[in-house]
Amino acid sequence: MKSMDKIVSLCKRRGFLFQSSEIYGGIQGFWDYGPLGVELKRNVKEAWWTDMIRGHNDLITPAGAPSTFEMVGLDSTIIMHPQVWKCSGHYDLFHDHMVDCRESKKRYRFDQVRGRWCEHRDQKIFVSTLAEVEQELDEVRRRAMKFFKLRPKNADELTVGNESLTLDQLDDTHSVLAPDAKSLDTLTEPREFNLMFKTTIGALGGEEDAAFLRPETAQGIFVNFKNVVDSSRVKIPFGIGQIGKSFRNEITPRNFTFRSREFEQMEIEFFCRPDQSQEWYRYWRDRRLAWYKTLGLSDESLIMREHHVEELAHYSVGTADIEYAFPFLPPGEYGELEGIAHRGDFDLRSHMEGKLDPNSPPGEPMKVELNEHGKPKHRGSGKDLSYRDEVTNEKFVPHVIEPSAGADRGVLAFLCEAYTEDEAPDENGEMQVRTVMKLHPRLAPVKAAVFPLVKKDGMPEVAQEIYGELKQSMNVFYDEKGAVGRRYRRQDEAGTPYCITVDTDTLTDKTVTIRDRDTLEQTRVKIDEVAAVIHTLLR
Amino acid sequence: MKSMDKIVSLCKRRGFLFQSSEIYGGIQGFWDYGPLGVELKRNVKEAWWTDMIRGHNDLITPAGAPSTFEMVGLDSTIIMHPQVWKCSGHYDLFHDHMVDCRESKKRYRFDQVRGRWCEHRDQKIFVSTLAEVEQELDEVRRRAMKFFKLRPKNADELTVGNESLTLDQLDDTHSVLAPDAKSLDTLTEPREFNLMFKTTIGALGGEEDAAFLRPETAQGIFVNFKNVVDSSRVKIPFGIGQIGKSFRNEITPRNFTFRSREFEQMEIEFFCRPDQSQEWYRYWRDRRLAWYKTLGLSDESLIMREHHVEELAHYSVGTADIEYAFPFLPPGEYGELEGIAHRGDFDLRSHMEGKLDPNSPPGEPMKVELNEHGKPKHRGSGKDLSYRDEVTNEKFVPHVIEPSAGADRGVLAFLCEAYTEDEAPDENGEMQVRTVMKLHPRLAPVKAAVFPLVKKDGMPEVAQEIYGELKQSMNVFYDEKGAVGRRYRRQDEAGTPYCITVDTDTLTDKTVTIRDRDTLEQTRVKIDEVAAVIHTLLR
Repeated sequence: MKSMDKIVSLCKRRGFLFQSSEIYGGIQGFWDYGPLGVELKRNVKEAWWTDMIRGHNDLITPAGAPSTFEMVGLDSTIIMHPQVWKCSGHYDLFHDHMVDCRESKKRYRFDQVRGRWCEHRDQKIFVSTLAEVEQELDEVRRRAMKFFKLRPKNADELTVGNESLTLDQLDDTHSVLAPDAKSLDTLTEPREFNLMFKTTIGALGGEEDAAFLRPETAQGIFVNFKNVVDSSRVKIPFGIGQIGKSFRNEITPRNFTFRSREFEQMEIEFFCRPDQSQEWYRYWRDRRLAWYKTLGLSDESLIMREHHVEELAHYSVGTADIEYAFPFLPPGEYGELEGIAHRGDFDLRSHMEGKLDPNSPPGEPMKVELNEHGKPKHRGSGKDLSYRDEVTNEKFVPHVIEPSAGADRGVLAFLCEAYTEDEAPDENGEMQVRTVMKLHPRLAPVKAAVFPLVKKDGMPEVAQEIYGELKQSMNVFYDEKGAVGRRYRRQDEAGTPYCITVDTDTLTDKTVTIRDRDTLEQTRVKIDEVAAVIHTLLR
Repeated sequence: MKSMDKIVSLCKRRGFLFQSSEIYGGIQGFWDYGPLGVELKRNVKEAWWTDMIRGHNDLITPAGAPSTFEMVGLDSTIIMHPQVWKCSGHYDLFHDHMVDCRESKKRYRFDQVRGRWCEHRDQKIFVSTLAEVEQELDEVRRRAMKFFKLRPKNADELTVGNESLTLDQLDDTHSVLAPDAKSLDTLTEPREFNLMFKTTIGALGGEEDAAFLRPETAQGIFVNFKNVVDSSRVKIPFGIGQIGKSFRNEITPRNFTFRSREFEQMEIEFFCRPDQSQEWYRYWRDRRLAWYKTLGLSDESLIMREHHVEELAHYSVGTADIEYAFPFLPPGEYGELEGIAHRGDFDLRSHMEGKLDPNSPPGEPMKVELNEHGKPKHRGSGKDLSYRDEVTNEKFVPHVIEPSAGADRGVLAFLCEAYTEDEAPDENGEMQVRTVMKLHPRLAPVKAAVFPLVKKDGMPEVAQEIYGELKQSMNVFYDEKGAVGRRYRRQDEAGTPYCITVDTDTLTDKTVTIRDRDTLEQTRVKIDEVAAVIHTLLR
């Protein structure tokens, strides 16, 4: 049976994933990729870059697309000018809430203490379920959810003893007994806590030198829109893709690498004419779902969840999440792999004019958000980020479709999907349970392993020659130690699709066996055809 | 003539490099890679990973190596447990110094104001050359230089008017007139300023939650040494390689991407037996130098600078820098591309026992550094990071050779080397100056461009078919706009090694021309052999 515990254990044992800084007790929400993991992750990122950016043919209209289009890449920095985050909305809206306890002088996340201890019918009650209430539905939060495509969990109700209470009944800080306090009503009003990691540039260390680690790679694309148009002559419609690290100061990182504080994204911002944005939105939504299936995620484990109209910001014609049935979730629940959002001209215009107000009334043009003095809350760059169509001479701010994928979440889904327990015959022909990682050959860290059956009779020399030839173009593993059955099992756990074995027949007929990881079938192939056969199999 | 200005201008104009957050006025010390730049940088990193890690044949002894060896990869996080930096020495030793001015309430880097205005023979003198004095030779700094392989600049003397003063004469803060102060002696004593970017994990924000952005990727390898040995069965000698971002809060980022605050490293930690470490040091030093030459850096532009014995920490048998004659340096000066350091067992033992004292007397075993109470200053992990040789059953802490390369500096050197102005005939056969980026074909962002000579007579269709075929395996560019001479020039500036042109002859004899970027020679090749020829040329 597939379980998260088994997957996590295999990942550590075989060098896919380690907890960061493990020898110092670890650091929560940070994960390192070991020798197998780094190759797997590189392959996932390489597949994305090849399929989306480098290998895209801009002269052919892909199935389902409104027209041909161009794709280029970018690599922007993690630390950017702080104004980027003010205009993007992250500075104001990317929050959780925290409270201080006047008695114990400790600080808490409000949604984790709120109602945790409360007075109900004159009794102090410990409401343990509330530790799971992550996203309270206050107004700021609701705006942030809309803006950043978060969505509420089923946290509106909770059970205290046999009674059902709504969150509203536990809503104010006065009824809370803070964890280390003796009396009620010791908490301050909830204050916003931004999820961006903050740092300081230069030695001065003042607030004017504050900077943030990017919580998404997308803004690096928006602020370079003009640079890319000017330097590479791309014409709308076109997309800019980027792979890189992002950081979010999550209070509750969990579920292995699914929610971590440091993670890698693969994001596309696709720029198009406003009147074609709906078609492009549908194209990218369908294409990105198909991509995961091509690389081995099964139909049954994947869903496309379209956001409801009321979840959408009014400038958007649609947002969809591609979700995967991760084994750490209850049956029937799915976790987000990628979001595809229609973002209108919101981002480019915000970087031109200053942060737009996503709460502007539907149907009306969005206004720049104002502060209490009626002045723009955050000034934009003042640069013209509109686009002039060379043919029609029209000038407009492009609309944007944003397929935003998590590289670590992709890797985790591929690992979970690949984990299989089946049966295979052991040395004596008896069926035994085996663990095998059925990774797509494109993603497999090691493409083939080469074994001499025994360490004599010239078998190692033949095997080493095959190894040397394959090594020039792919990651291959050579192993001559121990029983061949155990060597097969080790490669099964690493996800190696093919094992090439040099045996006694090799010495007479110049053939070797190629064993298929999934079917366990072994076929004999001439030595001098091995490389060609493996290359064909991998295609 | 090659000049930094021209190179910087071409990089921006053609989309190799942009200043980060440019629309907001930029942010000093941060650079974004545009569509051509990201492909160039990817190629540099891919070449390193293929040549050093993935393509390494562990069954053959390379020329100059003492024996065969294994290589594996790793990808660790940027934020690690803060104790990592305490034991590595970065927390205590990775500093600059700063001072506060009591009068103006401003803060300065000490070496930038020290002696800048000073009293000399009862006169206030402005000593402008001191702005260049970056590395004062106080004791802490000297230790840090030794430890982190920094080295002093020629800053021991300076000229004031016609007189020569030594730094000692300007050494104390009392003689300094701070830039915005009216009287002397307003500066506080210099205080240490750590070059690591600091941030905070979680909502609490106390000092116990402080964390740092890694200033090097190396420590992520050391702390995973045991995990890698346990999970991948590697045997000593072996190396672990990693590519990733690092951050240093440089006070004076400059020289384009040479000294930036966010940069990418390609580092190897090579673990070997102590009695073989000297041989391995020489092997890696020579191999890494050869790598840069293979990818096109010229003999004349590269030097290997061995550190003097007195610059070395006493546990080290050698450190060498591979340096390049960057055009922003005066003739005869070189800037560091990569350092290859023999680090003994310093790093692994520090992570076991606590930070070792690099100032322990030479010849004696190093002691853990103690605080004023005689207790270990920073406790190590307490984990056993020694290695047991399976054959001899010996147990020892491996010695380490560290070839540490800067990916951005590599890219910059390749760009500088490639920049060439020569002459080529224009449309009318007259010689004109042309700018061409003579990048090694492996590194070139675009491998080939395909042009129809004119947009008629079926030429575009033929060209598009060739484009489509090549696009499956490499980055290709299709261009049908404007005079073909201008299209060639654009590709020359992008560094594209081959241009394939479909012309009138193509329609009769089914051949196209392949133009060589560097020699300008054009050869005719059959259409159905183009892909094979280009693949061969690129090899």
